[in-house]
Amino acid sequence: MIVAGVDVGGTSVKTGIVGEGHKVVSRTKQPTPQEGPEALIAAIRGQIAALDERPSAVGVGIPGAVSGNRILHVPNLPGWPGQGDFGEELSKELGVPVALGNDVSCGLLGEWLAGAARGADNVLGVWWGTGVGGALVIDGRPFAGSRGAAGEIGHVLVRPGGALCGCGRRGCVEAYAGRRMMTRTARDMQASGRETALFEIQDAEDKDRPTSKVWEKALEAGDAIAAGIFREGIEAVGTGIGSVLNVLDLERVVIGGGFGQRMGKNLARQVAEVAVPRIMAPNPALRFVAAKLGDDAGIIGAGALARALVIEG
Amino acid sequence: MIVAGVDVGGTSVKTGIVGEGHKVVSRTKQPTPQEGPEALIAAIRGQIAALDERPSAVGVGIPGAVSGNRILHVPNLPGWPGQGDFGEELSKELGVPVALGNDVSCGLLGEWLAGAARGADNVLGVWWGTGVGGALVIDGRPFAGSRGAAGEIGHVLVRPGGALCGCGRRGCVEAYAGRRMMTRTARDMQASGRETALFEIQDAEDKDRPTSKVWEKALEAGDAIAAGIFREGIEAVGTGIGSVLNVLDLERVVIGGGFGQRMGKNLARQVAEVAVPRIMAPNPALRFVAAKLGDDAGIIGAGALARALVIEG
Repeated sequence: MIVAGVDVGGTSVKTGIVGEGHKVVSRTKQPTPQEGPEALIAAIRGQIAALDERPSAVGVGIPGAVSGNRILHVPNLPGWPGQGDFGEELSKELGVPVALGNDVSCGLLGEWLAGAARGADNVLGVWWGTGVGGALVIDGRPFAGSRGAAGEIGHVLVRPGGALCGCGRRGCVEAYAGRRMMTRTARDMQASGRETALFEIQDAEDKDRPTSKVWEKALEAGDAIAAGIFREGIEAVGTGIGSVLNVLDLERVVIGGGFGQRMGKNLARQVAEVAVPRIMAPNPALRFVAAKLGDDAGIIGAGALARALVIEG
Repeated sequence: MIVAGVDVGGTSVKTGIVGEGHKVVSRTKQPTPQEGPEALIAAIRGQIAALDERPSAVGVGIPGAVSGNRILHVPNLPGWPGQGDFGEELSKELGVPVALGNDVSCGLLGEWLAGAARGADNVLGVWWGTGVGGALVIDGRPFAGSRGAAGEIGHVLVRPGGALCGCGRRGCVEAYAGRRMMTRTARDMQASGRETALFEIQDAEDKDRPTSKVWEKALEAGDAIAAGIFREGIEAVGTGIGSVLNVLDLERVVIGGGFGQRMGKNLARQVAEVAVPRIMAPNPALRFVAAKLGDDAGIIGAGALARALVIEG
């Protein structure tokens, strides 16, 4: 069966045909439309038309909370209303069944089916980039919570009354580790007279903001401000994961997202060094690994949602 | 089928015959032997012999980490070695199959089958007393983690570098909310010249330590020290639960244990008032409730483990 998977990110929409054995056999990528759901539907239609094969079902990973085929909220894309029947509308437009999922859940599902989480029954995925998202596999099944809103490890508390988070609360993991918040901290420090090469590297790389690549280069260059902020991010992510592992006794943690993809094993090791000492009874089989499918993870996971739809239906 | 459930606590061992419909039809209770596993086996044998009916299987809730029929560790009972084949030894002694589980998991299982967690597919149980234990139902099934060590909400971090916890780490929920740690704080404050009625009430109640009842009476009497320490406990428990709900998107939280049983709804409401504002996307269906089966919860849950054993076998 031929299915398509679509991974809608804040920056780009990636669409691919997923064949047997969870292999992505063709793929395309374009900037995410900034004008809301209808523009996204048009973009996805165009991408699928451009691919080599006609899928019999389409899965879409959305950066927000999804319940069934409805969208509950999409906090980080402009032009999106609170709730909506996006799945049904896209299905009408494409003429094939559509399954929706959360983007991080799709990414972890891809890694679980064909990548770094394969073979593990109890997994936490931490997608660390602009924000810090999470997803779970529990008892051998993806778990999205009672309404599809599980996985918010970015809003686990690590420091009461601490740094202000994008969500309006204080002391969340993401307040320290989200790239957007890290960049804000770097700017504030620069404005108050501290020196950092972060924004020069950004310009040299021809980026409009410090991407994961820019942060990595600043760290490699020994930039003290970048290193200090990144260290706080690792502490926050590792501490939050430690709390989750005490509650869930999992066997694998997969670090993905922009930072996870770029810094790989080394980052997974640093996170583990913070998390493991926080665990009451660490599982000797517990492993911290980096995501390994890159952009394909989300496409494969979304494709699997589409496949399940056709098989169930 | 007639089964027995045994709930091994730090203070007492409660054993009952569980009949159809998860009803406890007879029960007995004695102080927990302080001399290790063999003394406990003898006590359980005596208790079961004293009951009206002969069970065809026995389930036991143990205050520790359990994996299959082996005990991984029992941190709070004197005389217990690190690991042991307790289940097999007890089974030989009783001549019937034995299933082991964690005590809090058994308590939540009882409340899920017949009490305050009935009908919910995604539940966190928080057993709040001497320590702060936890247990989970996820996707309609009890979930004990990859090795049976899940549920350690008492060791979710709420304050980095904060109060020293019994586990040796700092800033855990239990460092603020465990009754043992709360009592230590009250003693320290009294020693440094602050006045509290807590220990007078303990003496008047003829207890050897401030039990949940003693704490409740001190709070009712308007004792400022007790109220301040208890308030910190509520903040810690509520904050930890908020973090868990962000990750798991559950629909019910059951507050049990000594404090939960005694202070009921009122305590569940206070915990909710701290936890809910921490949740990114609170489930409108989310409810915080008090455990309602008292001592029977653990017996019923342990009985259900025994029942499953016979049915599977």
